[in-house]
Amino acid sequence: MMKYRRIPEETIRRMPRYLRAFSTLGGHGRGFLSSRQLADYLHLNPPQIRKDLSYFGDFGTRGVGYPVSQTAEQIRKILKLDVSQKAVLIGAGRLGTAIASYPGFAIFGFNIAAIFDNAPAKIGKKIAGLTIQDTARLAAIRSGDVHLAILAIPGEAAQTCADTLVQAGVRGILNLSPCWLRVPKRVKIVSIDLAMEMGTLPYYIK
Amino acid sequence: MMKYRRIPEETIRRMPRYLRAFSTLGGHGRGFLSSRQLADYLHLNPPQIRKDLSYFGDFGTRGVGYPVSQTAEQIRKILKLDVSQKAVLIGAGRLGTAIASYPGFAIFGFNIAAIFDNAPAKIGKKIAGLTIQDTARLAAIRSGDVHLAILAIPGEAAQTCADTLVQAGVRGILNLSPCWLRVPKRVKIVSIDLAMEMGTLPYYIK
Repeated sequence: MMKYRRIPEETIRRMPRYLRAFSTLGGHGRGFLSSRQLADYLHLNPPQIRKDLSYFGDFGTRGVGYPVSQTAEQIRKILKLDVSQKAVLIGAGRLGTAIASYPGFAIFGFNIAAIFDNAPAKIGKKIAGLTIQDTARLAAIRSGDVHLAILAIPGEAAQTCADTLVQAGVRGILNLSPCWLRVPKRVKIVSIDLAMEMGTLPYYIK
Repeated sequence: MMKYRRIPEETIRRMPRYLRAFSTLGGHGRGFLSSRQLADYLHLNPPQIRKDLSYFGDFGTRGVGYPVSQTAEQIRKILKLDVSQKAVLIGAGRLGTAIASYPGFAIFGFNIAAIFDNAPAKIGKKIAGLTIQDTARLAAIRSGDVHLAILAIPGEAAQTCADTLVQAGVRGILNLSPCWLRVPKRVKIVSIDLAMEMGTLPYYIK
């Protein structure tokens, strides 16, 4: 596989947005998309989009645009989303239950393979077709090929849980707990706090 | 109030992260935080942090760091989070219910003032102390001082709902529906799709 080097983190962060745009608009039967159309759709600017996509090779044509299905396929390869990626979900509370039932993960090739919680009342019950397992048995995922985890538990429990996940071979964590996690450098964390994401909105209200 | 100009969107996007860091670490009794400490905590680099904070004035001291409570207060002012900001929540499904009960909004001064849903079985019930109202009556929020909304409804319904919100005076939307919204330029949208946010993780797994 071709190696891509020195790509800014912000470019990588936008790539899933491009993928969703190509997937969605492609579904509407378009053969090509220009950077202008993408920009309107994504609230970004065209030069930014052209620069981002150029890091990965020259797959657009001036005056025509980017071929929808080929570009989507290329981005999937770059992001390693062209193979199904297993994830475990920790937390079967309100947020965890919402996540387990969210169809959006499939679009990106994610497969929620197991759900864990530490509440005795929840263990053994089923959500989204999966039986909730005891968090105490989390280390057992080591034997599987799970490299991703979604943390949807209270902040106090998150660090201990992250430590166990890292020992069990998890290399990427989507952290929805309102706390920052200390993990080895080889482990990538994406932290989303919905309140924090909303924190920029008042700034833009004139 | 002092005007701040030409601040990159990415800098604004990081400001709530700084605010949460200063709020959290300040709660642990620290008087000052260096850009290095912030960088370790936030998984960013120190020059980036110093550059970001310098857009808003010179409130750090070399060799000492940023005074925790004053800097938090300053960031709140910049982001207009020093006053309570009312938001309406649309959608009382699993995700909406999780959001209504999430204590994290209060940290940023957000106050979820009303909840709407269009399911007859839900209208009139209470979550998080608020009675679920009929989405058909959404236009009534015009009379209040609500400028923010959180959309936690299926994608198909989101655009119609956003149109009503904009007509009712909403100027900022946290969109959790898996779709992009067309709104006038004066309205700011932050779209979060948890599956999309997770889309960068496999790239970093070596």
